[in-house]
Amino acid sequence: MLQVDNMKKTETNLKQNLDLFKQLSTDLQTQDFLLTWQHSVNDLKAVLLLAEIFKELHRTNRSFRVFDTGMAVSIFRDQSTRTRFSFASAANALGLSLVDLDEEKSQIAHGETVRETANMISFLTEVIGIRDDVYLGEGNKYMREVAAAIQEGFDAGVLHKRPSVINLQCDLDHPTQTLADLLHLKKHFGSLNDLKGRKITISWAYSPSYGKPLSVPQGLIGLMTRFGMNVTLAHPQGYSLTPEIIELAKRHAQDATGSFSIVGNMEEAFDGADVVYPKSWAPYWVMERRTELLKLGDGDGLHDLEKECLANNAKYRNWECDASIMKRTLDENTLYMHCLPADITGVNAEHGEVSQDVFEKYRLDTYRQASYKPFIIAALIFLSRIENAKKRIDQIITR
Amino acid sequence: MLQVDNMKKTETNLKQNLDLFKQLSTDLQTQDFLLTWQHSVNDLKAVLLLAEIFKELHRTNRSFRVFDTGMAVSIFRDQSTRTRFSFASAANALGLSLVDLDEEKSQIAHGETVRETANMISFLTEVIGIRDDVYLGEGNKYMREVAAAIQEGFDAGVLHKRPSVINLQCDLDHPTQTLADLLHLKKHFGSLNDLKGRKITISWAYSPSYGKPLSVPQGLIGLMTRFGMNVTLAHPQGYSLTPEIIELAKRHAQDATGSFSIVGNMEEAFDGADVVYPKSWAPYWVMERRTELLKLGDGDGLHDLEKECLANNAKYRNWECDASIMKRTLDENTLYMHCLPADITGVNAEHGEVSQDVFEKYRLDTYRQASYKPFIIAALIFLSRIENAKKRIDQIITR
Amino acid sequence: MLQVDNMKKTETNLKQNLDLFKQLSTDLQTQDFLLTWQHSVNDLKAVLLLAEIFKELHRTNRSFRVFDTGMAVSIFRDQSTRTRFSFASAANALGLSLVDLDEEKSQIAHGETVRETANMISFLTEVIGIRDDVYLGEGNKYMREVAAAIQEGFDAGVLHKRPSVINLQCDLDHPTQTLADLLHLKKHFGSLNDLKGRKITISWAYSPSYGKPLSVPQGLIGLMTRFGMNVTLAHPQGYSLTPEIIELAKRHAQDATGSFSIVGNMEEAFDGADVVYPKSWAPYWVMERRTELLKLGDGDGLHDLEKECLANNAKYRNWECDASIMKRTLDENTLYMHCLPADITGVNAEHGEVSQDVFEKYRLDTYRQASYKPFIIAALIFLSRIENAKKRIDQIITR
Repeated sequence: MLQVDNMKKTETNLKQNLDLFKQLSTDLQTQDFLLTWQHSVNDLKAVLLLAEIFKELHRTNRSFRVFDTGMAVSIFRDQSTRTRFSFASAANALGLSLVDLDEEKSQIAHGETVRETANMISFLTEVIGIRDDVYLGEGNKYMREVAAAIQEGFDAGVLHKRPSVINLQCDLDHPTQTLADLLHLKKHFGSLNDLKGRKITISWAYSPSYGKPLSVPQGLIGLMTRFGMNVTLAHPQGYSLTPEIIELAKRHAQDATGSFSIVGNMEEAFDGADVVYPKSWAPYWVMERRTELLKLGDGDGLHDLEKECLANNAKYRNWECDASIMKRTLDENTLYMHCLPADITGVNAEHGEVSQDVFEKYRLDTYRQASYKPFIIAALIFLSRIENAKKRIDQIITR
Repeated sequence: MLQVDNMKKTETNLKQNLDLFKQLSTDLQTQDFLLTWQHSVNDLKAVLLLAEIFKELHRTNRSFRVFDTGMAVSIFRDQSTRTRFSFASAANALGLSLVDLDEEKSQIAHGETVRETANMISFLTEVIGIRDDVYLGEGNKYMREVAAAIQEGFDAGVLHKRPSVINLQCDLDHPTQTLADLLHLKKHFGSLNDLKGRKITISWAYSPSYGKPLSVPQGLIGLMTRFGMNVTLAHPQGYSLTPEIIELAKRHAQDATGSFSIVGNMEEAFDGADVVYPKSWAPYWVMERRTELLKLGDGDGLHDLEKECLANNAKYRNWECDASIMKRTLDENTLYMHCLPADITGVNAEHGEVSQDVFEKYRLDTYRQASYKPFIIAALIFLSRIENAKKRIDQIITR
Repeated sequence: MLQVDNMKKTETNLKQNLDLFKQLSTDLQTQDFLLTWQHSVNDLKAVLLLAEIFKELHRTNRSFRVFDTGMAVSIFRDQSTRTRFSFASAANALGLSLVDLDEEKSQIAHGETVRETANMISFLTEVIGIRDDVYLGEGNKYMREVAAAIQEGFDAGVLHKRPSVINLQCDLDHPTQTLADLLHLKKHFGSLNDLKGRKITISWAYSPSYGKPLSVPQGLIGLMTRFGMNVTLAHPQGYSLTPEIIELAKRHAQDATGSFSIVGNMEEAFDGADVVYPKSWAPYWVMERRTELLKLGDGDGLHDLEKECLANNAKYRNWECDASIMKRTLDENTLYMHCLPADITGVNAEHGEVSQDVFEKYRLDTYRQASYKPFIIAALIFLSRIENAKKRIDQIITR
């Protein structure tokens, strides 16, 4: 009886999301997905709804495969577990085979150009997922180069199809992460509407490592401001983000009648927060200088910079999310978020971003947060590749 | 006419195995497969029968695919050819896509914990195959940690499904190898019943390398004793196996009214044997000390230990399976077995486990022995994942 | 209306190629594909026609999948982008799963023999693609060893099926490249008949690197001479190819009433050419000496040889395909070809095989040339694996 009720609830849920999805007019077909702010709020809502539908189908053991054959190519220019497996899972669930472009095993070292490689891997490819987040000014540029190259190949009739390029993390944004984060918030608070007026704090936190990408905090302030949240960014002096994205967040907040503010201490940032997202990142100016030094191959300079940064970092060791600072948040239902892996004090770091007790309390929540990513990616692939997406989803649900 | 007869024989064979399979009451669904001795004889019989059915279906070019989509994740913490390809083949035959967790390309080096990684790779995963056989006391523990972590994730609703964990070789057992070995014996002698009273000799043999895992001989004495065989373990002084597994083999032999004995020389062990399985392994106490030194990062200690071991090893260079010792076995139909790759004197080693003429005589038999592994793994995956396994197999055979 | 016309044109095209394909009597089933000259002209024509059919099906978004499950194994003993992705794409399009035998992750280093490994990777495998082009006298030999080993396993009943071995580049030939090149020529000039009497120049060109394989120029002179082309091979003194293949090209030219000549300067070779294919390769005698030194592990000798070769190479820096030498060709419609990646002066090399302006003019043509390779490989797999190929293709087209 309970099971029958559950089944009914599932069907009602699927039907509701499907109806909402059908009402949205979107513009994602044959499009790349590089930065959330290049897409309308409607597009983002559609991605979330479709991800929810896919997740529910998977939970109830129903296939949403739409491809008979076809390739999904991944290019990882940095280590990855979560995103790698999310992309692999999304491709598999839709019926695509994953092939990783391992740059060491390819002839890219032999002077092959980006635009050439992009075409060579695309002859039977539906989607290209790229992670390139190490150098400021590089990752997003590289993705745009790949996209331009395959567009040229398609326009010239060399490629039968124009694969979609999906950003799996660049120097500016990490859209599959932040959309999974947004879906986690939507599910946690009940709806996107329920996010309005809620305070989310994206705070720098101490980590013994140096040079973590800026893309997650940047992606978060660029995205959460569009849904009427009160977004507070907190960091020590000198740890600012890319200026253009700060400006973007301000505009978004204005447009969505939320707010965006920057504060210089963690305590103030945590006061009354509904959601906290404490995470380490490198200062913008450091990433800029590091990128220059890497281009020059200046080993001594890099060594000096690292030393300077670590010394500077050490000054802010007290920027740790522990039980005491968590008390300043709204109440005990405040949501702690992290994109993982976190530096946990006493677990994998002497001093880290978060204390062991706080992390342990929210550990399964952070897994849940991560669990949306495969479905977000599947939704992005589906929406960019499938004609008559609405009709196809209807067929999938009712088959 | 011959072809029609063959087809009839195939169908009869399939039907017989199917009937036997249906009569067994088994308890493998939603279970991990870590050690053969954690499962009933009926369960093991069911695995063998299903592997035979799958092999016959493949031989006659019939698909036994049961998944539309889904992932099989492999984690190899040691080199592998046979097991890697067996797992890949089994996954493919059932319709799952293989993704390998390459720990160098993941963020595990960044301090990610096992329980976190286990969940991150499992969102759309049906099965996780793990090989972790290098350190004593580690491999099996690691597999149990992974299993506990995904159980926690499943219980908390983070994972929609609880993937099965399959041991692809640990420090204690190598169940997919020994079950393939058992199936090879069953096919060679006609039935499991025909194994009763037969003498199988698992003997240490000389190899110029040092530190080979104990899991194969341990797995063999733990498994073959359950089917009424007279199991003789032979090794030089000091090359003993894990004490608990020795005790286990003794109990199994008693329960199945077979026998288990340990002798100190190869000649005695080979006398009158129906089956010989000569293979090098490291002494238990060496593996213990090695594991400690590795944990301490004691390079000098490891160097000294290796020197001592190789010197000790060299004393037993005459533990080679050659034509002369093979004469002591039952007769010329005695079966030689090896899990491969073997150290063959004059081929890939100056002095090895087996002489070239003996190995060459049985070479294709060792390939045949290996050929069962993909089907054993497919059977393990199938039985742990598929509801109403008996009905589904019936459908597959009759479709 | 235009779309309807296009669809009609597509169908007519497919039907014509299908009819031609059906008329050819071929002998490719259950055969390896190692060297183009081991197969009849009819076989090669069938490969081309089927590749065209597959390409057209893909262009019009129709699946030509024929396998439900099954494995395609790749062994790359050299870096590769194009061929790696072409093999992966072909396997995927036909429904096979790709598994790469990464020799570092396997136990091959542990003294496993080729014949053993070949069987271990073949239990559920349909096709094995191999690239082994580094040492003269090795690559093709290795492929034949693999083929003999799996033949032995199949004959002994160890393997249910005998996988096909496909040469993805060896020391002698690069058949998937040259067949793609031939299809590019067929499409460019209208038909294979239209190639008769046309001058194709395969010329050595300068590259700052040393030791590029001989397989592409050898494969080209061995193949294009069979279709009545006037093949001119040009290279500086000392840069000759394998003598046996030179003899082969001469015989082919005689049989097909085309011509084959060797000239010592690029200018003469380009005079009046319909097609030019300027590309660097190492001298035959250098590859021979290099192979010997590598076998001896003679580091000093290799260093000296490299120094000598680079000095020698530098003398021929003027062997560059630039706008001035292109003027000597037939006319402005002359086709420039390259197997990629090319060494382009001022782009990825100070001095290279081709000037930037010439390469840029033909860049998209070289992509188009490469675009045939996945379909050539798919055709080779299909023809070697599928019984009643003609009937099956008919079914695929009409489904």
